[in-house]
Amino acid sequence: MHADELKQVHAELRDRLFHAGLLIPSGVDGLYGRNATFEAVVRAVDEQACLLGVDEQPEVVEFPPFLPRATFDRIGYLQTFPQLAGTVFSFTGGDREHAALVRQLEAGEEYADALSQTEITLVPACCYPVYPAATGALPLGGRVFELKTYCFRHEPSVDPMRMLAFRQREHVKLGTPDQVQEWRARWFERVPKLFSELGIDVTTEVANDAFFGRAGRFMASAQLEQELKFEFRIPVYGEEHPTACASLNYHQAHFGELFDIRGDDGAEAHSSCVGFGLERCAVALFARHGTDIESWPRAVRSRLWP
Amino acid sequence: MHADELKQVHAELRDRLFHAGLLIPSGVDGLYGRNATFEAVVRAVDEQACLLGVDEQPEVVEFPPFLPRATFDRIGYLQTFPQLAGTVFSFTGGDREHAALVRQLEAGEEYADALSQTEITLVPACCYPVYPAATGALPLGGRVFELKTYCFRHEPSVDPMRMLAFRQREHVKLGTPDQVQEWRARWFERVPKLFSELGIDVTTEVANDAFFGRAGRFMASAQLEQELKFEFRIPVYGEEHPTACASLNYHQAHFGELFDIRGDDGAEAHSSCVGFGLERCAVALFARHGTDIESWPRAVRSRLWP
Repeated sequence: MHADELKQVHAELRDRLFHAGLLIPSGVDGLYGRNATFEAVVRAVDEQACLLGVDEQPEVVEFPPFLPRATFDRIGYLQTFPQLAGTVFSFTGGDREHAALVRQLEAGEEYADALSQTEITLVPACCYPVYPAATGALPLGGRVFELKTYCFRHEPSVDPMRMLAFRQREHVKLGTPDQVQEWRARWFERVPKLFSELGIDVTTEVANDAFFGRAGRFMASAQLEQELKFEFRIPVYGEEHPTACASLNYHQAHFGELFDIRGDDGAEAHSSCVGFGLERCAVALFARHGTDIESWPRAVRSRLWP
Repeated sequence: MHADELKQVHAELRDRLFHAGLLIPSGVDGLYGRNATFEAVVRAVDEQACLLGVDEQPEVVEFPPFLPRATFDRIGYLQTFPQLAGTVFSFTGGDREHAALVRQLEAGEEYADALSQTEITLVPACCYPVYPAATGALPLGGRVFELKTYCFRHEPSVDPMRMLAFRQREHVKLGTPDQVQEWRARWFERVPKLFSELGIDVTTEVANDAFFGRAGRFMASAQLEQELKFEFRIPVYGEEHPTACASLNYHQAHFGELFDIRGDDGAEAHSSCVGFGLERCAVALFARHGTDIESWPRAVRSRLWP
């Protein structure tokens, strides 16, 4: 499909979800409300994604969808994914500056110059807040976390599989290279099995993150070559245009070094995470089985609501 | 208590919650992770707050913690609460601009000038996204919504009752003035009854929002005089310094006019909302009954986990 044709297909699915009341338009592409049925599917997928890792006895923690700028900058997000980053600006002036801001607002003018950057950024991947919280020596065998939060990535699109704001459920393993690789190996089996039981075709593919610009192309090919990222892709728009609904990432010692996390061997910890895009999983299910969940195949319903 | 003394008391409670592992520091005041026990209390309070309004048969919808800037500006948030507002800035340059940004980052310089304002702002109150979604004629009797999302207010504080990012559960009524006032009257009873059953002292007080600056003082006194806002306050830091854990707000035709919502009488709809600050409720419970939920009074436990 050409880009124009694909955009048309994206808009058709989005409009079908609007029409069924599952998504609620906000006026901005990629930002939608969700009705109770959509949420019930998100919740059910989320519960099944949690159950997949329950035998690892994860520490369950929740972070808000905001990250200290100091953490964001230490991770280097603006170096690698500046085009996706969201940072928070606020007004910090007094009465006089506010009067000027109000004049700009009333005149319908841009007012960015009245705002200043805060110490806060938006969480682009649900596991980021956990690494600074894990600084220090890991216990024997490492640590496993289960996390969920809203993520923000600035990629406006009519594609309902690509929202600006979406929830991720992640499991994260921190430990020695062996511990992390063993953990990762288990997830290669678990994720496709779940999707397949939900009646969804999925392929597992070596992948790269959307690193920015010319320098980013080298990082992407290194990531591919070392097989650090795998995506579980669903052909919502046909075999040629599959979308990643989950991914399995091996960070080697990246976060261990950045946040001084040490494995039970005393060396810098390795880490790996598996993340589910919950809205993507839900949209994929509606695209596959229809917008009326009452008419979904019995096997799918009983897998989601056992 | 003097301000310094109060700040000390705030820090003591926060440190007690850190020490018990209920909150996880992020390095920024007001931004914390939460462990599974804290989340269990949040979830239980939330469920009870939902049950209070279940007889109204609300439409359950969920919006992400982001709002279109067009909606934010139409509501006039920067006119009234600029000091609390959060807006999203992103990087939209090319390779050359990125190289300059990376130089700023590596030199540890401010880089706000490399970012530009997006079409997105942060949700400061959980009901805001619902009004533009309700444009048009309401059905007979009006509409009731049940909503939850993360809210952001830029008020950094060591007080764990005042987070930068927190979840609100809200019920919202849209209808004729009579319908809305009847609905509001029911909540005056419901909210204090729940808190009291949770072993928490609560007072119901006429209140005003934190309108900004000199002009804001007039808005605040008008709001007080017309009794448009009531807060349900809990004396976590003593009777003299209670904190609002829930509030009941009557907007008259404010949102009906802004978003062209009409009641079943054809006139601009009135609206009212009741909101629970879920983290505040949880912190108030830990402050009142201790950080070990196993030792909470039996009546409180069975009210939260029936």
